[in-house]
Amino acid sequence: MSALTTAIREQLEQVSVATLTTTLFKRGLRNQLIQAVLPVCRTGGKRKLIGPAYTLRYMPAREDLNKLDVFRDREHPQRKAIEECPPGHVMVIDSRKDARAASAGGILITRLQERGVAGVVTDGGFRDSPDIGQLDMPAYHLHPAPPTNLTHHQAIDIDVPIGCGDAPVFPGDIIFGDDEGVVVIPAHLAAECAQEAVDMTAFEDFVTEQVKAGRSVLGLYPATDPRTPEEFAAWRKANGR
Amino acid sequence: MSALTTAIREQLEQVSVATLTTTLFKRGLRNQLIQAVLPVCRTGGKRKLIGPAYTLRYMPAREDLNKLDVFRDREHPQRKAIEECPPGHVMVIDSRKDARAASAGGILITRLQERGVAGVVTDGGFRDSPDIGQLDMPAYHLHPAPPTNLTHHQAIDIDVPIGCGDAPVFPGDIIFGDDEGVVVIPAHLAAECAQEAVDMTAFEDFVTEQVKAGRSVLGLYPATDPRTPEEFAAWRKANGR
Amino acid sequence: MSALTTAIREQLEQVSVATLTTTLFKRGLRNQLIQAVLPVCRTGGKRKLIGPAYTLRYMPAREDLNKLDVFRDREHPQRKAIEECPPGHVMVIDSRKDARAASAGGILITRLQERGVAGVVTDGGFRDSPDIGQLDMPAYHLHPAPPTNLTHHQAIDIDVPIGCGDAPVFPGDIIFGDDEGVVVIPAHLAAECAQEAVDMTAFEDFVTEQVKAGRSVLGLYPATDPRTPEEFAAWRKANGR
Amino acid sequence: MSALTTAIREQLEQVSVATLTTTLFKRGLRNQLIQAVLPVCRTGGKRKLIGPAYTLRYMPAREDLNKLDVFRDREHPQRKAIEECPPGHVMVIDSRKDARAASAGGILITRLQERGVAGVVTDGGFRDSPDIGQLDMPAYHLHPAPPTNLTHHQAIDIDVPIGCGDAPVFPGDIIFGDDEGVVVIPAHLAAECAQEAVDMTAFEDFVTEQVKAGRSVLGLYPATDPRTPEEFAAWRKANGR
Amino acid sequence: MSALTTAIREQLEQVSVATLTTTLFKRGLRNQLIQAVLPVCRTGGKRKLIGPAYTLRYMPAREDLNKLDVFRDREHPQRKAIEECPPGHVMVIDSRKDARAASAGGILITRLQERGVAGVVTDGGFRDSPDIGQLDMPAYHLHPAPPTNLTHHQAIDIDVPIGCGDAPVFPGDIIFGDDEGVVVIPAHLAAECAQEAVDMTAFEDFVTEQVKAGRSVLGLYPATDPRTPEEFAAWRKANGR
Amino acid sequence: MSALTTAIREQLEQVSVATLTTTLFKRGLRNQLIQAVLPVCRTGGKRKLIGPAYTLRYMPAREDLNKLDVFRDREHPQRKAIEECPPGHVMVIDSRKDARAASAGGILITRLQERGVAGVVTDGGFRDSPDIGQLDMPAYHLHPAPPTNLTHHQAIDIDVPIGCGDAPVFPGDIIFGDDEGVVVIPAHLAAECAQEAVDMTAFEDFVTEQVKAGRSVLGLYPATDPRTPEEFAAWRKANGR
Repeated sequence: MSALTTAIREQLEQVSVATLTTTLFKRGLRNQLIQAVLPVCRTGGKRKLIGPAYTLRYMPAREDLNKLDVFRDREHPQRKAIEECPPGHVMVIDSRKDARAASAGGILITRLQERGVAGVVTDGGFRDSPDIGQLDMPAYHLHPAPPTNLTHHQAIDIDVPIGCGDAPVFPGDIIFGDDEGVVVIPAHLAAECAQEAVDMTAFEDFVTEQVKAGRSVLGLYPATDPRTPEEFAAWRKANGR
Repeated sequence: MSALTTAIREQLEQVSVATLTTTLFKRGLRNQLIQAVLPVCRTGGKRKLIGPAYTLRYMPAREDLNKLDVFRDREHPQRKAIEECPPGHVMVIDSRKDARAASAGGILITRLQERGVAGVVTDGGFRDSPDIGQLDMPAYHLHPAPPTNLTHHQAIDIDVPIGCGDAPVFPGDIIFGDDEGVVVIPAHLAAECAQEAVDMTAFEDFVTEQVKAGRSVLGLYPATDPRTPEEFAAWRKANGR
Repeated sequence: MSALTTAIREQLEQVSVATLTTTLFKRGLRNQLIQAVLPVCRTGGKRKLIGPAYTLRYMPAREDLNKLDVFRDREHPQRKAIEECPPGHVMVIDSRKDARAASAGGILITRLQERGVAGVVTDGGFRDSPDIGQLDMPAYHLHPAPPTNLTHHQAIDIDVPIGCGDAPVFPGDIIFGDDEGVVVIPAHLAAECAQEAVDMTAFEDFVTEQVKAGRSVLGLYPATDPRTPEEFAAWRKANGR
Repeated sequence: MSALTTAIREQLEQVSVATLTTTLFKRGLRNQLIQAVLPVCRTGGKRKLIGPAYTLRYMPAREDLNKLDVFRDREHPQRKAIEECPPGHVMVIDSRKDARAASAGGILITRLQERGVAGVVTDGGFRDSPDIGQLDMPAYHLHPAPPTNLTHHQAIDIDVPIGCGDAPVFPGDIIFGDDEGVVVIPAHLAAECAQEAVDMTAFEDFVTEQVKAGRSVLGLYPATDPRTPEEFAAWRKANGR
Repeated sequence: MSALTTAIREQLEQVSVATLTTTLFKRGLRNQLIQAVLPVCRTGGKRKLIGPAYTLRYMPAREDLNKLDVFRDREHPQRKAIEECPPGHVMVIDSRKDARAASAGGILITRLQERGVAGVVTDGGFRDSPDIGQLDMPAYHLHPAPPTNLTHHQAIDIDVPIGCGDAPVFPGDIIFGDDEGVVVIPAHLAAECAQEAVDMTAFEDFVTEQVKAGRSVLGLYPATDPRTPEEFAAWRKANGR
Repeated sequence: MSALTTAIREQLEQVSVATLTTTLFKRGLRNQLIQAVLPVCRTGGKRKLIGPAYTLRYMPAREDLNKLDVFRDREHPQRKAIEECPPGHVMVIDSRKDARAASAGGILITRLQERGVAGVVTDGGFRDSPDIGQLDMPAYHLHPAPPTNLTHHQAIDIDVPIGCGDAPVFPGDIIFGDDEGVVVIPAHLAAECAQEAVDMTAFEDFVTEQVKAGRSVLGLYPATDPRTPEEFAAWRKANGR
């Protein structure tokens, strides 16, 4: 889990998906947001999803291969993934943006939480979503999807590179979520993006304070007025940031 | 209302859309969820929608046939349906998945409630949805749709087989809804699906308890470990289920 | 701001998007709802958005013209619009129904509020939407959109006629929003639609009261029973409406 | 078949879907085009589809009611419709815009042709479409749809009002198709729209001739220059139109 | 290539996608059509695509990993797949139904043909499609997609199970295409489906002949009239089928 | 018309949309293809569309502002654009990707041709498309759209920056189309992209010749084998390219 040090995690705790997408935009990466995915339960912005990606890939279900008894096989990739996703990681599921059937349900997601997994993201939907929304572990999806996953999905691959909500996800990428959605930070950029996001967040907090005090955004945001950087430096010092 | 006995209703009160879709999946029915439809107002999982289907079919509105004065006709199918939907039934509206205009509004839905109707479902949207969300009677739709239904819909048929959210709905089918959506149970399967769902719910509650206590899902869910059925039998006895 | 007198504003405070769309439908206007747009934060129906339209048009972003430093230009149309939208007006943004990237973020929307702007509507999405939802000024969008607007949008025109959510919007049209969405009232119809909506709302409140008392909608809504208009007249007098 | 006299039919033979939609637009009807439907085989504009509508309504297929042996029932609505659609009529199928499975196949459509039916339109797709495209009878659909209709469709109603490609279709409406698609002319407007379309077509042919000779459209189309009507009158006389 | 014997291939040469989907429907498989995919160039029904599947999986492109020089790597999965797809096989590409950028272009597809590959299918689009349409080897896609695949796709996996046009595709499944699209036949069903399709095709040819001679479909199709099977048996003998 | 010299035009005549999108991709521009737009009539690759962009912007139609008599106004932007688009230019229409109604019809497009305009592109559809397809001037759209443009579109702006098929289009950009679609080349890049595309086309013709002779793409395309550049240089000399 080298890409996610304690220092990086602490930095990420202070920032937002919006700010992180801008750090990636600056580096030429425009498609790292998992589009259209939202928290199963919003928490008023307090809860963050942070952890390295562990992936599960679904393909369309062929009916003869997806009867209920497939789950009796302990090697079935969905069950295997639930038991093997490393603690602290985020399970990211490629459901081909199809929420007609579930990506997983309450029992499996509860098991993930009990195993110490950091969270779960699908570009499909979860069943038992009212229960999942009550868990301490954050979960993200498109919308509730009550039918069993076997109706349309077959779990086929574990921890391979996938697409999720039109974003590329490689195992080990850092997954970050808040109340606006989920962004995928390439592992090698985690440290620099986290640091930059902390600095940007401080600046945006300063700007917001100024704007609430009646100041125009011109010259302030971005800081084209030469006094703005000076004022910000003073503000940082005064506010210990 | 033969398909929905008091016994079946009591069983259904204890189960979920998710579990019922699995009982239908086992019987080869994969498309009984009314896709994308959610409660106008979520209630934290406490309120269930249960009743036999009474249907209303809309077709696209032709402008000359859908001026405001059509409602002066007491035989207009929309108004007739509102006054004739039997108490205890669920009105299910085929709006062709089009929520650009309303399927119905606050006054008509309030009238349904006053008449003792069990609930209402459309694969379009309702207008006056904040008011509808405050009613005691559950209502399900895609999203708010303020314009009058005449803008895009003409009520044309009452209590015929319809499609709703890609699901087939026959008059008399048992409609069941919770916070995750609405499922259509063919009338002749209501008794056996309700019973099976009660049993499955007991087992899933047992499993959830075990998982929360730290147990792996392997061998437990499904119950491939021979001890699991024994433990479940003991749990049922102990918990009176 | 001639189209929106204090009298009209007071009338609009009492009515709903649903009722206003009907007044427009009667006048042959069927496409004035900004489709699919909802409040960033619902307020239980209490807050209304009212004001003349001031528009901002986006086009698809060409990468070389939309690097982060474009905002250093004080003439950049997005920043200019934020500083120039007249107090009391509603900024309406044509984002081509594309919420893959933001239409604007928390700082700019806060600045709008501080400047006395009445509200903001986009047929895309906002970033920092949890913050925007906490503002006193109402904001409407499709769903959260964390990436910077430069990712997919370039601000190109200020206060020209635009499309927003498939509705035509001309500068100066009266924008009205409640918890169900946003409707565009052509400026020249504002007075008559507001008056008519007040009357319709009174009648609908009367009808709702009757329906809650157990009366059928037939003859009542619409008022084809000759006693209904008489009863309504009495009710208005009794209730001071 | 009173709405479609020989005289009207002869007039319709000379006009186009485009011109007819304008005659309907003038009468306030904006949604009479069956959206997105094209000929299975284009014929270079020579072949027209003309006839009164005879409708077939599909609903979503429930698996247990749609096994292959349902066609052994001579009363099955799809087979019944094929044998009962009156000669000279156009079969219009409401497939809910779903072309994942066929609306019908080569054998049934050939039978329609042999029975003297004027044509067939679905807002889904046909299977065996290369064969259907070779028939003398015109057929319109979205795109080829090889799977049997039972996969997703159940025929449920014959000759009821339906929606097709977002257009309202009533039995007896006059269906008109050319290489650009299909328009639905309400029966009571057939005579006046046909006559008006003939006149408009003559004018447009005159205009096209003028434009090809280098004339500007200003003053010509529409004929705001007072000389234009005079020239057109002379042209009509000279060309026997 | 055990699933595709010469005998099976000869049988498949005589049948259609439509008939094969029915043989799969009878076996409970309803999703084996690769939805919406059509030949780059239609051939009037004469050319068939037949061969075992060899797959290529794309994921969304991350910009830093998909610059033009990646193709300098001889191990790049796209180039590797082009050189390693076995002769006689069909390359099936999972492009996540995204045709904004190409799945491949003229040079690579020409190379496939030169290597003896049987054909290529993508649920995205090809660039240089006019050239590809002129090849002897059949190719299927959604529509032309001129931009280089690197714009939106990264080749990531070779010969793994994939989804293509919502159908499940396993390496070795038999891929069959005609002018209506492409169907995926599970390897273990190839022999029985091919045989059954040959028989069904004979029957349908017999039926078509009867229908063209004026016979009703009732009793004929399906053959519920007891004389129909007798007549068909005689027809088969007479026609050597 | 400085961006499009005779030399550049001659170079463009030899290349393709596919190759030009690659030259733009190399420069960081990924969204210059007008998505989903195809020629009204394919010509087997022989006809090219080349010219600087002259734009027309549509907004959604408000019914009271879009009655048929609006065209009596000689200043109506649609008619004005038809008469003022400079010869040699390409008219590009922003129809908001809405082909439910026409962007223009046969008479106006014929007038464009007569005026010497180079071609026309809309991200909606044309009416009278069979006639438009017969013109010498190339036209591109989504699909036929018979209803008059007034049904859903109001022409509002001439020669402003627009979006078309999700691509940004600035007046004066060089528009290039072939049988696969249309690409927008920023004016300042026209010279270098045209030159580079000519070189790339020569190389791709060389490669295609080699591939057809049985050579592997490895080492050839891209030319990582050091002999490849030498062989290509020799081929260019031998073939006068």
